[in-house]
Amino acid sequence: MSPPSAVDIEAVRDTEAIVLPDPLTVSGVAARRAKAGKLVAGTASYASSESFKSPAPGKPKAKRFDHLLSLESRSRKPSSLKGAAKFLKDPNLISLGGGLPCAEHFPIAELSIKVPTPPHFSEEDTKQSGVTLNAGKYDVSEGSSIYDLSIALNYGQGTGSAQVLRFVTEHTEIVCNPPYQDWQCCLTVGSTAALEQAYRMFCERGDYVLSEEYTFASAVETAAPLGVKFLGVKMDSEGLLPESLDEILSNWDVKERKARKPFLLYTVPTGQNPTGATQGVERRKAVYKVAQKHDVYIIEDEPYYFLQMQPYTGAGAPPVPPPANHEEFLKALAPTYLSIDVDGRVMRMDSFSKVIAPGTRVGWITASEQIVERFIRHNETSIQNPSGLSQMVLYKLLDEGWGHGGYLDWLIDLRLAYTKRRDGLLAACEKFLPTDLISWNPPAAGMFLWLKVNWQKHPAAKTKHILDIEEEIFLAAVERGVLVSRGSWFLGEKNTDVAPTDMFFRATFAAATEEKMSEAIERFAEAVKESFGAK
Amino acid sequence: MSPPSAVDIEAVRDTEAIVLPDPLTVSGVAARRAKAGKLVAGTASYASSESFKSPAPGKPKAKRFDHLLSLESRSRKPSSLKGAAKFLKDPNLISLGGGLPCAEHFPIAELSIKVPTPPHFSEEDTKQSGVTLNAGKYDVSEGSSIYDLSIALNYGQGTGSAQVLRFVTEHTEIVCNPPYQDWQCCLTVGSTAALEQAYRMFCERGDYVLSEEYTFASAVETAAPLGVKFLGVKMDSEGLLPESLDEILSNWDVKERKARKPFLLYTVPTGQNPTGATQGVERRKAVYKVAQKHDVYIIEDEPYYFLQMQPYTGAGAPPVPPPANHEEFLKALAPTYLSIDVDGRVMRMDSFSKVIAPGTRVGWITASEQIVERFIRHNETSIQNPSGLSQMVLYKLLDEGWGHGGYLDWLIDLRLAYTKRRDGLLAACEKFLPTDLISWNPPAAGMFLWLKVNWQKHPAAKTKHILDIEEEIFLAAVERGVLVSRGSWFLGEKNTDVAPTDMFFRATFAAATEEKMSEAIERFAEAVKESFGAK
Repeated sequence: MSPPSAVDIEAVRDTEAIVLPDPLTVSGVAARRAKAGKLVAGTASYASSESFKSPAPGKPKAKRFDHLLSLESRSRKPSSLKGAAKFLKDPNLISLGGGLPCAEHFPIAELSIKVPTPPHFSEEDTKQSGVTLNAGKYDVSEGSSIYDLSIALNYGQGTGSAQVLRFVTEHTEIVCNPPYQDWQCCLTVGSTAALEQAYRMFCERGDYVLSEEYTFASAVETAAPLGVKFLGVKMDSEGLLPESLDEILSNWDVKERKARKPFLLYTVPTGQNPTGATQGVERRKAVYKVAQKHDVYIIEDEPYYFLQMQPYTGAGAPPVPPPANHEEFLKALAPTYLSIDVDGRVMRMDSFSKVIAPGTRVGWITASEQIVERFIRHNETSIQNPSGLSQMVLYKLLDEGWGHGGYLDWLIDLRLAYTKRRDGLLAACEKFLPTDLISWNPPAAGMFLWLKVNWQKHPAAKTKHILDIEEEIFLAAVERGVLVSRGSWFLGEKNTDVAPTDMFFRATFAAATEEKMSEAIERFAEAVKESFGAK
Repeated sequence: MSPPSAVDIEAVRDTEAIVLPDPLTVSGVAARRAKAGKLVAGTASYASSESFKSPAPGKPKAKRFDHLLSLESRSRKPSSLKGAAKFLKDPNLISLGGGLPCAEHFPIAELSIKVPTPPHFSEEDTKQSGVTLNAGKYDVSEGSSIYDLSIALNYGQGTGSAQVLRFVTEHTEIVCNPPYQDWQCCLTVGSTAALEQAYRMFCERGDYVLSEEYTFASAVETAAPLGVKFLGVKMDSEGLLPESLDEILSNWDVKERKARKPFLLYTVPTGQNPTGATQGVERRKAVYKVAQKHDVYIIEDEPYYFLQMQPYTGAGAPPVPPPANHEEFLKALAPTYLSIDVDGRVMRMDSFSKVIAPGTRVGWITASEQIVERFIRHNETSIQNPSGLSQMVLYKLLDEGWGHGGYLDWLIDLRLAYTKRRDGLLAACEKFLPTDLISWNPPAAGMFLWLKVNWQKHPAAKTKHILDIEEEIFLAAVERGVLVSRGSWFLGEKNTDVAPTDMFFRATFAAATEEKMSEAIERFAEAVKESFGAK
């Protein structure tokens, strides 16, 4: 396969030129559902986002990306057994075809969860006003629900169940409203697995993936055994720099690099891990334009999208009032790449890990029909679909329980909770950290604070390697009873002979209580001062 | 990598020569647990089967299989972030390291399931005498359980949770008692995904995997996009023929085949899909010996292992009395490959799909420490671990609820239920099918009856292609309202110019009621007779 050439700039669609219909709203969902009629989807039913989207005749169709697909992905064929499913539409047919066990042999008669009632989300509130949601084995035939354990506990399709797929499709339309017609969703078992599948869908051994200079370590480690290397794009406080991206791609020398020109960008645009950087709207548009220019496909990994917080006002300053309603909340969010993706060159990866719980092991991707179809084919011969128990819990909680409105209320509550956590950590930093040695930007999203160390002031700056000083500080912090992550762990390009120019540590505000965070930062400050001989 | 040469026959370990200690029993588990003390394993705790096995100093260590591992698998490295977890042992340490969300933000306060009480397993019994098992968020700190939602809903390790890993390790020791020392288990998200991981662990593009001539279509379709082809080994009513396996391997011509000598055998030894064949103990030993001779690694895929049924006594004959106790039940099972695997050259794949429910999306593999370690590394950068909700449901049901004894009771109950299902289908076959045109062997295990069609008697046998006649019968059956699977769908070797010599259809006795099955077979008989002009 020859390296993809840069597309003709004339052919680049303008992200502004397409006039979108009004986005779907919470009440719009109710209207759409009422029009569509009751969802009927039994055991292992075929499902597609197409059934759950608003009509959008004015939107263009996605471009095709055949030329970017890997040999593996191109070779995937539909299952021969699943092909026989088309005969099952005849209600008089008796199937002795598929080896699906009978629900009578599933030893779980009922499943119940106790969950908070919006907007009273705290653990204390849940004790008082929480509700119990129940799933029985035969709720569908008994008419009490459209999803039951006889379905959730059996085999399913590679998309995930119609019931959960409907919810995430509607949610994606409310939040992203993709500007092309044939977008679809598909459930995943979490974004790490989805990312591995995406690499296998696009990359061959020897390829490079472009990403932020400092990036999610697991994304690099997932790619490495596949023979796929990361190439770091320079960053500023808003993350990825489009000029750096363009420069790398414009000057790519296949011979010198011994690799074809990169065509895959992995980015965490919001609350980036580890830097906490969030790309603003203009930044996103500029990056997208470069991607169009060089025909780059974008993997938008957004676990922290809904951990966008209130603006930081500083210690002691009055907080910014919370969003007054769903519309205000949605408008306060940075636009997604998916929402400006006129070409269909974005695979967005969403996850319930950070907004509901990692243990659900459920997320979803959104991309063009062509890409999602290839992804579903892979699901069919690997993970099949997420746990039916997880799907049932999410369905009961999000769809039957909260609804889209209640879920947005939950996300607003989470926004305020993380704002409080971040502000607590920042207050501790302002109180304890020596600002001549350590600096930081208050993050607008995510779970992480990225602390830059002015290592040139270190007494051993001229005699020791930067990574040795980093290790010394890290171990001094551990010695004093605080664990932070070393910045060098997140360098996308490994095994380089060039030493990093800057030194960072990553601290999370997600995991500890405010009191503990404060103590931890005090300890870290002591460790740094000691290492710098400033004490 | 050069093709592995056949190992020196002198170096082959005798499967009989190792004297095993008495296998672990249900009461033995209680004693072992009492000795080990309370299981303490919190959020994202490290877990290993080593902690849950009986000591076995007399067993040899597994051989190493470095020479069979793929480039991808050899390249896998431990996660740098997970490496930092070693510092977490200090209870005074405050971690701002990992981005694990706080349990207070998980909106599921309680989870309950209603399940049957052994030995009263029927749905009717469950209504009467079923119990409700509850999981709270903080049961561990409150002292009421060793596993709670704060753990299950957070991130975990690539092995799965210690709590569920303990159960499957003990179960595997009770059932298989592997004859080497360093065997381990690791949870999977089901055997389809585990199989894909296994292919990637061993195979390179262009390799052949050996398997039964007729095999699980999904196993072939999972391998194909990876550039891995299936090579069919001849079968009889007991499945895989060791002589055919030996012949293929002994006469392998690298140049002619344009591929290195195969070293991976995929087999479903019990209730094979699609043929329903079950390998007897001597057959398994003979196959294992051939594997040793040619240094072949065995993937033992056993979803139907506990769907081994009572001996078939014929229509109207009195049934064989059910197993009187757990020991009798376990003795009535065919020995697993794992139980004769003196070398550690078997990866056994177990699954809860057929014995609890497919929707759990939980299974586990058992193999030598070396192989399991590589598998865990892959889990860490893909599926991570199965759904915590599924793990919690399985833990509550199997460990806290039933215990190992109750689970064996359940498996005995399932054995009798599937015996009844099979006997129902066989009675219908004996009643309706024209025995001059269709023949079959009563299956000893699994979900499938394999119907052989005497197609040579078909009026078009000399003029039409066998696959066209197969299709004609298939469509005639659909026309009459019954779906069976075409035998040719299960041929491991695709795109061959050689027509199959035999014609088969696969019918399941898992999915329909006895009445429906009878009607379906009557319809199928009509379709066959019509196609043969015998009507």
